[in-house]
Amino acid sequence: MKKEDRFVKQITPKSVDFSKWYGEIIRKAELADYAPMKGMMIIRPYGYAIWENLKAQLDKRIKDSGHSNAYFPLFIPESLLAKETEHLEGFSPEVAWVTHGGQEELEERLAVRPTSEAIIGSMYSKWIKSWRDLPLLINQWANIVRWEKVTRPFLRTTEFLWQEGHTVHETSEEAQEETLMILAMYKEFVESELAIPVISGIKSEREKFAGALATYAIEALMSDGKALQMGTSHNLGQHFSKVFNIRYEDRNQNIQYAWQTSWGMSTRLIGALIMAHGDDSGLRLPPRIAPIQAVIVPISLGNWKDEVLPVAVKIQSELHEMGLRVELDQREEFTPGWKFSEWEMRGVPIRIEIGPRDVKENQAICVRRDSGKKEPVPLDALAVKLPELLSDIQKSLYAKALEFQMTNTHDIESYEEFKATLEEQRGFLRTFWCGKTACEERIKEETMATIRVILLEEDKSIGGERCILCGEKSEHLAYFARAY
Amino acid sequence: MKKEDRFVKQITPKSVDFSKWYGEIIRKAELADYAPMKGMMIIRPYGYAIWENLKAQLDKRIKDSGHSNAYFPLFIPESLLAKETEHLEGFSPEVAWVTHGGQEELEERLAVRPTSEAIIGSMYSKWIKSWRDLPLLINQWANIVRWEKVTRPFLRTTEFLWQEGHTVHETSEEAQEETLMILAMYKEFVESELAIPVISGIKSEREKFAGALATYAIEALMSDGKALQMGTSHNLGQHFSKVFNIRYEDRNQNIQYAWQTSWGMSTRLIGALIMAHGDDSGLRLPPRIAPIQAVIVPISLGNWKDEVLPVAVKIQSELHEMGLRVELDQREEFTPGWKFSEWEMRGVPIRIEIGPRDVKENQAICVRRDSGKKEPVPLDALAVKLPELLSDIQKSLYAKALEFQMTNTHDIESYEEFKATLEEQRGFLRTFWCGKTACEERIKEETMATIRVILLEEDKSIGGERCILCGEKSEHLAYFARAY
Repeated sequence: MKKEDRFVKQITPKSVDFSKWYGEIIRKAELADYAPMKGMMIIRPYGYAIWENLKAQLDKRIKDSGHSNAYFPLFIPESLLAKETEHLEGFSPEVAWVTHGGQEELEERLAVRPTSEAIIGSMYSKWIKSWRDLPLLINQWANIVRWEKVTRPFLRTTEFLWQEGHTVHETSEEAQEETLMILAMYKEFVESELAIPVISGIKSEREKFAGALATYAIEALMSDGKALQMGTSHNLGQHFSKVFNIRYEDRNQNIQYAWQTSWGMSTRLIGALIMAHGDDSGLRLPPRIAPIQAVIVPISLGNWKDEVLPVAVKIQSELHEMGLRVELDQREEFTPGWKFSEWEMRGVPIRIEIGPRDVKENQAICVRRDSGKKEPVPLDALAVKLPELLSDIQKSLYAKALEFQMTNTHDIESYEEFKATLEEQRGFLRTFWCGKTACEERIKEETMATIRVILLEEDKSIGGERCILCGEKSEHLAYFARAY
Repeated sequence: MKKEDRFVKQITPKSVDFSKWYGEIIRKAELADYAPMKGMMIIRPYGYAIWENLKAQLDKRIKDSGHSNAYFPLFIPESLLAKETEHLEGFSPEVAWVTHGGQEELEERLAVRPTSEAIIGSMYSKWIKSWRDLPLLINQWANIVRWEKVTRPFLRTTEFLWQEGHTVHETSEEAQEETLMILAMYKEFVESELAIPVISGIKSEREKFAGALATYAIEALMSDGKALQMGTSHNLGQHFSKVFNIRYEDRNQNIQYAWQTSWGMSTRLIGALIMAHGDDSGLRLPPRIAPIQAVIVPISLGNWKDEVLPVAVKIQSELHEMGLRVELDQREEFTPGWKFSEWEMRGVPIRIEIGPRDVKENQAICVRRDSGKKEPVPLDALAVKLPELLSDIQKSLYAKALEFQMTNTHDIESYEEFKATLEEQRGFLRTFWCGKTACEERIKEETMATIRVILLEEDKSIGGERCILCGEKSEHLAYFARAY
């Protein structure tokens, strides 16, 4: 293969410029493109196919745990959003406002939904009358608009896609149980399907959702050592139910305010896939959510169209019938080498090469995208070997990411060590914090690190138990990091 | 069963007030609810589950015919929309405009997408370079906003959900082929899955999509004799490719403007399901897209919890394992009669009743929603009988709707007959029309009937061949109707 064959010759190594590397993968793997409007993106078919796979897997978990999907309006009247002051203040810098419908100016401007607690709360107050109507477990798949100053495809854009769960319960305990059940479901989903290990815990007051009693989150470490929030689960308490008057008659015929939760995950997960697994040749997709799990590249030597292509077609159709997502790349305008690079860029877990000599030997060469390891496989063993390989790649990607996370999680005992570690290695800094916003803010100002989560159970194995900044006694074991 | 048990006692018969009947089904079957903003609706879980089933079946057909899904932005800059004057003029009375982002007024206002030809065209001009990039076959599932003065849930709302296909081709012939292939796919989908027969054909100039060369549509007859447009497929010619500069190098190295199509179907289909199949007891859902295909109602007599319930649970789990969507209604606060009415309202195709005596006789009573017919079925025969019944109900709903359509399609030979038929019977009026907009408009003014479609192939079996209004010689055999 000639050097100039290589599709990816111009890619910036991630060690040289992580942000440029990220942008080049998005462009070259055709995941997304920039729209003509600032801060908006197009999710191209390959990126969208990843989203469809993530969505199917998450949707199944949401439904299996008893939730139903529904659809609420895109527009929310300003007066409805303003009913909950803390909530409005939290979101108003980010709201896009519709002021005209057709030729007419509207009497009241409409927010393009930045989140749906207000509109959903106003409907729940109509629908819920009795404890028999509870729990009400609804999820919505929708587009969301938040006016962002600084944007980056998948990670922070003016419009993105997400799911938002909104549930209502009889008691505080049930709402808390739901909040934590969803947090655990999110963790299991991301670890099993995306092969990305996460830490989970509670957010500080400063970082919690506007209007929530408590926000829980899962956070992952990207391969540049920065953290990414992957999903959040909020216990809303009775905050919104009091504002939107969501009341029910309880089992003793008393009227009560209901207890609520909300929770969400978004297209940001695609950004996480790139940054957690990608390398200098491009994406590396976990097989369980890869749009193409294996690509067959016939080696165009000699009389390949008569000798090789029919065998490749047969392999594809057999694997396809087993339920595997297999593509056959029979384009004639590109060399095999060019194709190898393109499919590596797109992160296809397995490449199956087959040339005239392989056909004679009744074999194909399987190449793993995660390790680059090649091995010949007899044609009649492919149907057994492929699922094994895919399962092994899924595990191996997770194991690598977990090893990275563990290596880059540092137990910190002094503020000096905190600052030095951030400068030299980044990663998660696990340390104690007094619980005061003042300390949290000063740490952020001085180091750009924020509290990602506070652990739910104390890990007594590390020393300290005093705030890393002020030295006051502390029970909050927190993960700090610079974050996206 | 006492009279006052009946869940639906207050429903307005469809013969008394069709529009009220329609609204009551939506409310009582919990398909949708009104939002606090004029013209917007909430699709409730049961309505959304129908949409999810329709979507899954249509999405499969879209993908199987070679299209990929993608996602384009919700907002379209005014200047982009204005590039195509006819298109902008067609949509501007219906556009919702975003003028502020956060605290700032935008330099250019943004349209909330009323359709996506402009934004998608502007991206295609970047992506398409050579004939090798064609055909480009993309579909999008998205929300759409059109500022409507008069609204009705599912049929006409300010926001609705749809899919929009946008394809690009090398030649005019290929674009036309795609347009007609999609039209045929829509017809097959609606007839097979929704059990609603449709007529298909081309729209008149007056009724075509703003900016299209030609619009094709499928139209169905609702049970009040009014027509409903179910889906449209547009041959866009080179109209948008010239405006948005979508050019490619052809096989002879010449630069050409590309040929395009677009096509869409929406949540309006749910309205069609109500109006085509519903009766005075509520919805009647075709089994293939019903969220619940059968509901088991245990008859709460005697020691039913010990004797009947375990049998019902066993039946449900067996049918569920076969892949059937079966619900067991074990609520204690409602009588069996109340439950019967509720599930009838929701249009569940089969009700399975089982009481203490049935358990003794090792049977259950199956009741069809479409015909009301009851029959005892031995418990060990349910697994065979249920799929048969479901398949028969699907066919029977289609046959009934087809019979209705045929009975209510009238071959018309004079304008007097035209007007009289519309007054007395409504339905489709099949007749010749000269092709002039003046005649079409006068007919609409005088009768409120519009041309739904013009047949693609002439049906010579009817007399006339002269315009029903002006008497000029005509080759356009058209279906007229009053329409939603």
